[in-house]
Amino acid sequence: MSDGLTVPFALAAGLSGAVDSTNLIIIAGLAEIAAGSIAMGLGGYLAGKTEIDHYNSELKREHEEVELVPQREKEEVKDFFANLGLSEEVQHQAVNEMTKDKDKWVDFMMKYELGLDKPDEKRARKSAFNIGISYIVGGIIPLSPYFFFKDGITGLKISAIITLICLFIFGYFKSRITGVSPVGGGLRVMLIGAIAAACAFTIARLIEGL
Amino acid sequence: MSDGLTVPFALAAGLSGAVDSTNLIIIAGLAEIAAGSIAMGLGGYLAGKTEIDHYNSELKREHEEVELVPQREKEEVKDFFANLGLSEEVQHQAVNEMTKDKDKWVDFMMKYELGLDKPDEKRARKSAFNIGISYIVGGIIPLSPYFFFKDGITGLKISAIITLICLFIFGYFKSRITGVSPVGGGLRVMLIGAIAAACAFTIARLIEGL
Repeated sequence: MSDGLTVPFALAAGLSGAVDSTNLIIIAGLAEIAAGSIAMGLGGYLAGKTEIDHYNSELKREHEEVELVPQREKEEVKDFFANLGLSEEVQHQAVNEMTKDKDKWVDFMMKYELGLDKPDEKRARKSAFNIGISYIVGGIIPLSPYFFFKDGITGLKISAIITLICLFIFGYFKSRITGVSPVGGGLRVMLIGAIAAACAFTIARLIEGL
Repeated sequence: MSDGLTVPFALAAGLSGAVDSTNLIIIAGLAEIAAGSIAMGLGGYLAGKTEIDHYNSELKREHEEVELVPQREKEEVKDFFANLGLSEEVQHQAVNEMTKDKDKWVDFMMKYELGLDKPDEKRARKSAFNIGISYIVGGIIPLSPYFFFKDGITGLKISAIITLICLFIFGYFKSRITGVSPVGGGLRVMLIGAIAAACAFTIARLIEGL
Protein backbone atom coordinates (compact mmCIF):
# COMPACT_ATOMS: atom_id res chain seq x y z
CA MET A 1 0.00 0.00 0.00
CA SER A 2 2.89 2.33 0.77
CA ASP A 3 4.31 1.70 -2.72
CA GLY A 4 0.83 2.10 -4.13
CA LEU A 5 0.62 5.55 -2.56
CA THR A 6 4.18 6.58 -3.34
CA VAL A 7 4.75 5.58 -6.95
CA PRO A 8 1.51 6.89 -8.55
CA PHE A 9 1.86 10.04 -6.41
CA ALA A 10 5.43 10.61 -7.63
CA LEU A 11 4.55 9.78 -11.23
CA ALA A 12 1.65 12.25 -11.22
CA ALA A 13 3.92 14.83 -9.57
CA GLY A 14 6.51 14.28 -12.29
CA LEU A 15 3.97 14.68 -15.06
CA SER A 16 2.54 17.81 -13.41
CA GLY A 17 5.96 19.34 -13.93
CA ALA A 18 5.94 18.52 -17.64
CA VAL A 19 2.40 18.63 -19.01
CA ASP A 20 -0.48 21.05 -18.66
CA SER A 21 -3.45 18.73 -19.08
CA THR A 22 -4.56 16.74 -16.07
CA ASN A 23 -6.25 14.33 -18.48
CA LEU A 24 -2.90 12.85 -19.42
CA ILE A 25 -1.82 12.65 -15.79
CA ILE A 26 -4.95 10.64 -15.04
CA ILE A 27 -4.36 8.27 -17.97
CA ALA A 28 -0.74 7.70 -16.97
CA GLY A 29 -1.69 7.33 -13.32
CA LEU A 30 -4.40 4.76 -13.98
CA ALA A 31 -2.13 2.85 -16.37
CA GLU A 32 0.54 2.78 -13.66
CA ILE A 33 -1.96 1.60 -11.04
CA ALA A 34 -3.13 -1.19 -13.34
CA ALA A 35 0.44 -2.20 -14.12
CA GLY A 36 1.67 -1.99 -10.54
CA SER A 37 -1.27 -3.82 -8.98
CA ILE A 38 -1.00 -6.67 -11.50
CA ALA A 39 2.79 -6.90 -11.32
CA MET A 40 2.76 -6.94 -7.51
CA GLY A 41 -0.44 -8.89 -6.91
CA LEU A 42 -0.02 -11.53 -9.61
CA GLY A 43 3.75 -11.50 -9.13
CA GLY A 44 3.26 -12.12 -5.42
CA TYR A 45 0.78 -14.91 -6.09
CA LEU A 46 3.11 -16.71 -8.51
CA ALA A 47 6.07 -16.20 -6.18
CA GLY A 48 3.97 -17.87 -3.48
CA LYS A 49 3.22 -20.79 -5.80
CA THR A 50 6.92 -21.12 -6.63
CA GLU A 51 7.70 -21.20 -2.93
CA ILE A 52 5.23 -24.05 -2.45
CA ASP A 53 6.82 -26.02 -5.33
CA HIS A 54 10.24 -25.40 -3.85
CA TYR A 55 9.10 -26.55 -0.41
CA ASN A 56 7.57 -29.74 -1.80
CA SER A 57 10.65 -30.64 -3.85
CA GLU A 58 12.88 -30.13 -0.79
CA LEU A 59 10.47 -32.18 1.32
CA LYS A 60 10.70 -35.06 -1.12
CA ARG A 61 14.49 -34.84 -1.13
CA GLU A 62 14.68 -34.89 2.68
CA HIS A 63 12.42 -37.93 2.83
CA GLU A 64 14.74 -39.70 0.40
CA GLU A 65 17.86 -38.71 2.29
CA VAL A 66 16.45 -39.94 5.58
CA GLU A 67 15.92 -43.33 3.90
CA LEU A 68 19.16 -43.48 1.90
CA VAL A 69 21.78 -41.77 4.07
CA PRO A 70 20.31 -41.83 7.60
CA GLN A 71 23.76 -41.65 9.21
CA ARG A 72 24.64 -38.39 7.49
CA GLU A 73 21.24 -36.93 8.33
CA LYS A 74 21.70 -37.95 11.96
CA GLU A 75 25.03 -36.12 11.97
CA GLU A 76 23.18 -32.99 10.82
CA VAL A 77 20.67 -33.29 13.64
CA LYS A 78 23.56 -33.75 16.06
CA ASP A 79 25.30 -30.64 14.67
CA PHE A 80 22.16 -28.66 15.36
CA PHE A 81 22.14 -29.68 19.03
CA ALA A 82 25.91 -29.18 19.27
CA ASN A 83 25.47 -25.60 17.99
CA LEU A 84 22.98 -24.98 20.78
CA GLY A 85 25.83 -25.74 23.21
CA LEU A 86 24.49 -29.05 24.52
CA SER A 87 26.88 -31.68 25.85
CA GLU A 88 27.99 -34.70 23.81
CA GLU A 89 25.77 -36.94 25.93
CA VAL A 90 22.56 -34.91 25.59
CA GLN A 91 23.24 -34.45 21.85
CA HIS A 92 23.35 -38.20 21.53
CA GLN A 93 20.16 -38.84 23.43
CA ALA A 94 18.34 -36.06 21.62
CA VAL A 95 19.38 -37.44 18.22
CA ASN A 96 18.21 -40.92 19.15
CA GLU A 97 14.80 -39.73 20.30
CA MET A 98 14.44 -37.23 17.47
CA THR A 99 15.08 -39.73 14.69
CA LYS A 100 12.69 -42.41 15.90
CA ASP A 101 9.74 -40.89 14.10
CA LYS A 102 10.72 -40.31 10.47
CA ASP A 103 8.02 -37.75 9.74
CA LYS A 104 8.98 -35.65 12.75
CA TRP A 105 12.61 -36.05 11.76
CA VAL A 106 11.97 -34.75 8.24
CA ASP A 107 9.88 -31.86 9.61
CA PHE A 108 12.78 -30.99 11.87
CA MET A 109 15.29 -31.04 8.97
CA MET A 110 13.02 -28.84 6.86
CA LYS A 111 12.58 -26.28 9.56
CA TYR A 112 15.95 -26.13 11.28
CA GLU A 113 18.45 -27.34 8.68
CA LEU A 114 16.89 -25.65 5.65
CA GLY A 115 15.00 -22.92 7.49
CA LEU A 116 11.84 -23.60 5.47
CA ASP A 117 8.39 -23.18 6.95
CA LYS A 118 5.49 -24.95 5.32
CA PRO A 119 3.96 -22.31 3.04
CA ASP A 120 0.22 -21.85 3.20
CA GLU A 121 -1.33 -21.77 -0.29
CA LYS A 122 -4.58 -20.17 0.85
CA ARG A 123 -2.75 -17.45 2.71
CA ALA A 124 -0.46 -16.77 -0.27
CA ARG A 125 -3.52 -16.31 -2.47
CA LYS A 126 -5.20 -14.00 0.01
CA SER A 127 -2.05 -12.00 0.59
CA ALA A 128 -1.51 -11.50 -3.17
CA PHE A 129 -5.09 -10.35 -3.52
CA ASN A 130 -4.65 -7.89 -0.65
CA ILE A 131 -1.46 -6.51 -2.18
CA GLY A 132 -3.18 -5.92 -5.51
CA ILE A 133 -6.22 -4.23 -3.95
CA SER A 134 -4.07 -2.13 -1.61
CA TYR A 135 -2.06 -0.91 -4.56
CA ILE A 136 -5.24 0.18 -6.35
CA VAL A 137 -6.70 1.90 -3.27
CA GLY A 138 -3.33 3.48 -2.50
CA GLY A 139 -2.97 4.69 -6.06
CA ILE A 140 -6.43 6.25 -6.34
CA ILE A 141 -5.73 8.54 -3.36
CA PRO A 142 -2.88 10.62 -4.85
CA LEU A 143 -4.58 10.63 -8.25
CA SER A 144 -8.01 11.80 -7.10
CA PRO A 145 -7.28 15.57 -6.92
CA TYR A 146 -6.41 15.55 -10.63
CA PHE A 147 -9.98 14.55 -11.40
CA PHE A 148 -11.27 17.80 -9.90
CA PHE A 149 -8.68 20.32 -11.07
CA LYS A 150 -7.90 21.20 -14.66
CA ASP A 151 -4.49 22.57 -13.75
CA GLY A 152 -1.71 20.06 -13.05
CA ILE A 153 0.12 22.18 -10.49
CA THR A 154 -3.02 22.79 -8.42
CA GLY A 155 -3.76 19.07 -8.57
CA LEU A 156 -0.21 18.37 -7.46
CA LYS A 157 -0.48 20.65 -4.42
CA ILE A 158 -3.69 19.01 -3.19
CA SER A 159 -2.34 15.56 -4.06
CA ALA A 160 0.87 16.24 -2.11
CA ILE A 161 -1.04 17.31 1.00
CA ILE A 162 -3.42 14.35 0.94
CA THR A 163 -0.76 11.77 0.05
CA LEU A 164 1.82 12.91 2.58
CA ILE A 165 -0.81 12.84 5.33
CA CYS A 166 -1.86 9.33 4.26
CA LEU A 167 1.77 8.17 4.12
CA PHE A 168 2.34 9.50 7.62
CA ILE A 169 -0.77 7.77 8.98
CA PHE A 170 0.19 4.55 7.20
CA GLY A 171 3.77 4.67 8.51
CA TYR A 172 2.50 5.55 11.99
CA PHE A 173 0.25 2.51 12.33
CA LYS A 174 2.68 0.15 10.60
CA SER A 175 5.40 1.17 13.06
CA ARG A 176 3.07 0.71 16.00
CA ILE A 177 2.46 -2.90 14.93
CA THR A 178 6.18 -3.67 14.61
CA GLY A 179 6.91 -1.91 17.90
CA VAL A 180 9.15 0.94 16.71
CA SER A 181 8.59 4.65 17.35
CA PRO A 182 5.33 5.45 15.47
CA VAL A 183 6.06 9.14 14.81
CA GLY A 184 9.55 8.36 13.54
CA GLY A 185 8.16 5.60 11.31
CA GLY A 186 5.45 7.89 9.97
CA LEU A 187 7.98 10.59 9.14
CA ARG A 188 10.23 8.06 7.41
CA VAL A 189 7.52 6.78 5.09
CA MET A 190 6.40 10.35 4.38
CA LEU A 191 9.95 11.40 3.56
CA ILE A 192 10.40 8.59 1.03
CA GLY A 193 7.24 9.71 -0.76
CA ALA A 194 8.36 13.35 -0.78
CA ILE A 195 11.83 12.51 -2.12
CA ALA A 196 10.45 10.20 -4.82
CA ALA A 197 7.96 12.86 -5.95
CA ALA A 198 10.57 15.63 -5.93
CA CYS A 199 12.94 13.53 -8.04
CA ALA A 200 10.25 12.55 -10.52
CA PHE A 201 9.16 16.19 -10.80
CA THR A 202 12.73 17.42 -11.36
CA ILE A 203 13.52 14.76 -13.95
CA ALA A 204 10.33 15.44 -15.90
CA ARG A 205 11.01 19.20 -15.82
CA LEU A 206 14.57 18.72 -17.03
CA ILE A 207 13.57 16.52 -19.98
CA GLU A 208 10.71 18.83 -20.88
CA GLY A 209 13.22 21.70 -20.96
CA LEU A 210 15.51 19.89 -23.43
CA MET B 1 14.40 -6.06 -11.36
CA SER B 2 11.37 -7.96 -12.55
CA ASP B 3 9.13 -5.14 -11.25
CA GLY B 4 11.53 -2.63 -12.81
CA LEU B 5 11.03 -4.30 -16.17
CA THR B 6 7.31 -4.89 -15.84
CA VAL B 7 5.90 -1.64 -14.49
CA PRO B 8 7.68 0.88 -16.79
CA PHE B 9 7.02 -1.48 -19.71
CA ALA B 10 3.32 -1.64 -18.93
CA LEU B 11 3.10 2.10 -18.26
CA ALA B 12 4.76 2.91 -21.59
CA ALA B 13 2.48 0.40 -23.30
CA GLY B 14 -0.53 2.07 -21.74
CA LEU B 15 0.55 5.51 -22.85
CA SER B 16 1.28 4.23 -26.36
CA GLY B 17 -2.39 3.41 -26.56
CA ALA B 18 -3.40 6.94 -25.61
CA VAL B 19 -0.86 9.47 -26.87
CA ASP B 20 0.92 9.99 -30.18
CA SER B 21 4.15 11.57 -29.02
CA THR B 22 6.88 9.27 -27.71
CA ASN B 23 8.34 12.30 -25.93
CA LEU B 24 5.62 12.11 -23.32
CA ILE B 25 6.01 8.38 -22.95
CA ILE B 26 9.69 8.90 -22.21
CA ILE B 27 8.98 11.61 -19.64
CA ALA B 28 6.37 9.47 -17.89
CA GLY B 29 8.62 6.42 -18.09
CA LEU B 30 11.64 8.17 -16.59
CA ALA B 31 9.49 9.76 -13.88
CA GLU B 32 8.14 6.31 -13.02
CA ILE B 33 11.65 4.82 -12.94
CA ALA B 34 12.85 7.59 -10.62
CA ALA B 35 9.82 7.18 -8.37
CA GLY B 36 9.94 3.38 -8.33
CA SER B 37 13.68 3.08 -7.74
CA ILE B 38 13.55 5.56 -4.85
CA ALA B 39 10.40 4.08 -3.31
CA MET B 40 11.77 0.55 -3.48
CA GLY B 41 15.45 1.24 -2.82
CA LEU B 42 15.05 3.83 -0.07
CA GLY B 43 11.93 2.06 1.21
CA GLY B 44 13.89 -1.19 1.41
CA TYR B 45 16.77 0.52 3.19
CA LEU B 46 14.53 2.10 5.81
CA ALA B 47 12.61 -1.15 6.26
CA GLY B 48 15.97 -2.81 6.93
CA LYS B 49 16.83 -0.15 9.51
CA THR B 50 13.45 -0.65 11.18
CA GLU B 51 14.08 -4.37 11.33
CA ILE B 52 17.40 -3.73 13.09
CA ASP B 53 15.71 -1.44 15.63
CA HIS B 54 13.04 -4.07 16.19
CA TYR B 55 15.66 -6.79 16.69
CA ASN B 56 17.62 -4.70 19.16
CA SER B 57 14.56 -3.80 21.21
CA GLU B 58 13.51 -7.47 21.38
CA LEU B 59 17.09 -8.45 22.31
CA LYS B 60 17.04 -6.02 25.21
CA ARG B 61 13.68 -7.36 26.35
CA GLU B 62 14.87 -10.98 26.24
CA HIS B 63 17.98 -10.08 28.28
CA GLU B 64 15.76 -8.47 30.89
CA GLU B 65 13.36 -11.41 30.99
CA VAL B 66 16.18 -13.89 31.44
CA GLU B 67 17.26 -11.88 34.50
CA LEU B 68 13.81 -11.15 35.91
CA VAL B 69 11.70 -14.21 35.13
CA PRO B 70 14.25 -16.99 34.46
CA GLN B 71 11.76 -19.71 35.44
CA ARG B 72 9.24 -18.66 32.81
CA GLU B 73 11.96 -18.38 30.18
CA LYS B 74 13.22 -21.84 31.10
CA GLU B 75 9.69 -23.15 30.57
CA GLU B 76 9.77 -21.69 27.07
CA VAL B 77 13.06 -23.42 26.28
CA LYS B 78 11.59 -26.66 27.60
CA ASP B 79 8.50 -26.22 25.41
CA PHE B 80 10.75 -25.92 22.37
CA PHE B 81 12.44 -29.24 23.12
CA ALA B 82 9.11 -30.83 23.99
CA ASN B 83 7.77 -29.79 20.58
CA LEU B 84 10.69 -31.55 18.94
CA GLY B 85 9.37 -34.73 20.53
CA LEU B 86 12.16 -35.25 23.08
CA SER B 87 11.50 -37.12 26.31
CA GLU B 88 10.88 -35.35 29.64
CA GLU B 89 14.36 -36.37 30.81
CA VAL B 90 16.28 -35.09 27.79
CA GLN B 91 14.19 -31.90 27.82
CA HIS B 92 15.30 -31.32 31.38
CA GLN B 93 18.98 -31.92 30.73
CA ALA B 94 18.93 -29.80 27.58
CA VAL B 95 17.29 -26.90 29.41
CA ASN B 96 19.86 -27.09 32.21
CA GLU B 97 22.80 -27.05 29.80
CA MET B 98 21.24 -24.48 27.51
CA THR B 99 20.56 -21.92 30.21
CA LYS B 100 24.00 -22.00 31.81
CA ASP B 101 25.38 -19.39 29.43
CA LYS B 102 23.02 -16.40 29.46
CA ASP B 103 24.19 -14.96 26.13
CA LYS B 104 23.68 -18.27 24.36
CA TRP B 105 20.33 -18.62 26.08
CA VAL B 106 19.17 -15.21 24.84
CA ASP B 107 20.44 -15.98 21.32
CA PHE B 108 18.44 -19.17 21.42
CA MET B 109 15.27 -17.37 22.52
CA MET B 110 15.68 -14.76 19.79
CA LYS B 111 16.13 -17.34 17.09
CA TYR B 112 13.78 -20.14 18.07
CA GLU B 113 11.13 -18.50 20.25
CA LEU B 114 10.77 -15.27 18.26
CA GLY B 115 12.10 -16.53 14.93
CA LEU B 116 14.36 -13.48 14.55
CA ASP B 117 17.73 -13.68 12.87
CA LYS B 118 20.26 -10.98 13.60
CA PRO B 119 19.86 -8.53 10.70
CA ASP B 120 23.03 -7.42 8.94
CA GLU B 121 23.08 -3.63 8.54
CA LYS B 122 25.74 -3.65 5.82
CA ARG B 123 23.86 -6.25 3.84
CA ALA B 124 20.58 -4.34 4.18
CA ARG B 125 22.28 -1.24 2.77
CA LYS B 126 23.83 -3.15 -0.11
CA SER B 127 20.59 -4.96 -0.90
CA ALA B 128 18.61 -1.68 -0.97
CA PHE B 129 21.21 -0.17 -3.28
CA ASN B 130 20.98 -3.20 -5.58
CA ILE B 131 17.18 -3.00 -5.66
CA GLY B 132 17.30 0.67 -6.64
CA ILE B 133 19.90 0.13 -9.37
CA SER B 134 18.12 -2.98 -10.70
CA TYR B 135 14.91 -1.01 -10.97
CA ILE B 136 16.67 1.69 -13.01
CA VAL B 137 18.41 -0.80 -15.30
CA GLY B 138 15.23 -2.84 -15.63
CA GLY B 139 13.22 0.29 -16.45
CA ILE B 140 15.59 1.63 -19.10
CA ILE B 141 15.24 -1.58 -21.16
CA PRO B 142 11.52 -1.33 -22.03
CA LEU B 143 11.80 2.43 -22.43
CA SER B 144 14.77 2.47 -24.81
CA PRO B 145 12.88 1.77 -28.08
CA TYR B 146 10.82 4.93 -27.55
CA PHE B 147 14.02 6.97 -27.83
CA PHE B 148 14.51 5.79 -31.40
CA PHE B 149 10.99 5.78 -32.76
CA LYS B 150 8.73 8.79 -33.10
CA ASP B 151 5.62 6.63 -33.25
CA GLY B 152 4.33 5.19 -29.97
CA ILE B 153 2.89 2.00 -31.45
CA THR B 154 6.15 1.14 -33.24
CA GLY B 155 8.02 1.81 -30.01
CA LEU B 156 5.58 -0.42 -28.17
CA LYS B 157 6.09 -3.33 -30.57
CA ILE B 158 9.88 -3.25 -30.23
CA SER B 159 9.60 -2.64 -26.49
CA ALA B 160 7.26 -5.62 -26.10
CA ILE B 161 9.65 -7.95 -27.94
CA ILE B 162 12.73 -6.84 -26.00
CA THR B 163 10.99 -6.74 -22.62
CA LEU B 164 9.24 -10.09 -22.92
CA ILE B 165 12.54 -11.74 -23.91
CA CYS B 166 14.27 -10.10 -20.94
CA LEU B 167 11.49 -11.15 -18.58
CA PHE B 168 11.75 -14.72 -19.82
CA ILE B 169 15.55 -14.76 -19.35
CA PHE B 170 15.20 -13.20 -15.92
CA GLY B 171 12.52 -15.68 -14.85
CA TYR B 172 14.54 -18.54 -16.29
CA PHE B 173 17.68 -17.84 -14.25
CA LYS B 174 15.79 -16.89 -11.12
CA SER B 175 13.93 -20.22 -11.25
CA ARG B 176 17.18 -22.11 -11.79
CA ILE B 177 18.57 -20.62 -8.58
CA THR B 178 15.50 -21.55 -6.54
CA GLY B 179 15.43 -25.01 -8.10
CA VAL B 180 12.07 -24.92 -9.90
CA SER B 181 11.48 -25.60 -13.60
CA PRO B 182 13.36 -22.77 -15.40
CA VAL B 183 11.22 -22.70 -18.55
CA GLY B 184 8.01 -22.66 -16.51
CA GLY B 185 9.39 -19.88 -14.32
CA GLY B 186 10.46 -17.85 -17.35
CA LEU B 187 7.03 -18.18 -18.92
CA ARG B 188 5.35 -17.17 -15.66
CA VAL B 189 7.32 -13.95 -15.31
CA MET B 190 6.80 -13.17 -19.00
CA LEU B 191 3.08 -13.72 -18.68
CA ILE B 192 2.76 -11.30 -15.75
CA GLY B 193 4.48 -8.60 -17.82
CA ALA B 194 2.24 -9.25 -20.82
CA ILE B 195 -0.96 -9.15 -18.75
CA ALA B 196 0.09 -5.97 -16.93
CA ALA B 197 0.93 -4.25 -20.23
CA ALA B 198 -2.28 -5.38 -21.91
CA CYS B 199 -4.38 -4.08 -18.99
CA ALA B 200 -2.56 -0.75 -18.89
CA PHE B 201 -2.99 -0.37 -22.65
CA THR B 202 -6.70 -1.20 -22.51
CA ILE B 203 -7.38 1.15 -19.61
CA ALA B 204 -5.53 4.03 -21.25
CA ARG B 205 -7.40 3.43 -24.53
CA LEU B 206 -10.75 3.36 -22.76
CA ILE B 207 -10.15 6.63 -20.90
CA GLU B 208 -8.77 8.31 -24.01
CA GLY B 209 -11.97 7.27 -25.80
CA LEU B 210 -14.20 8.92 -23.17
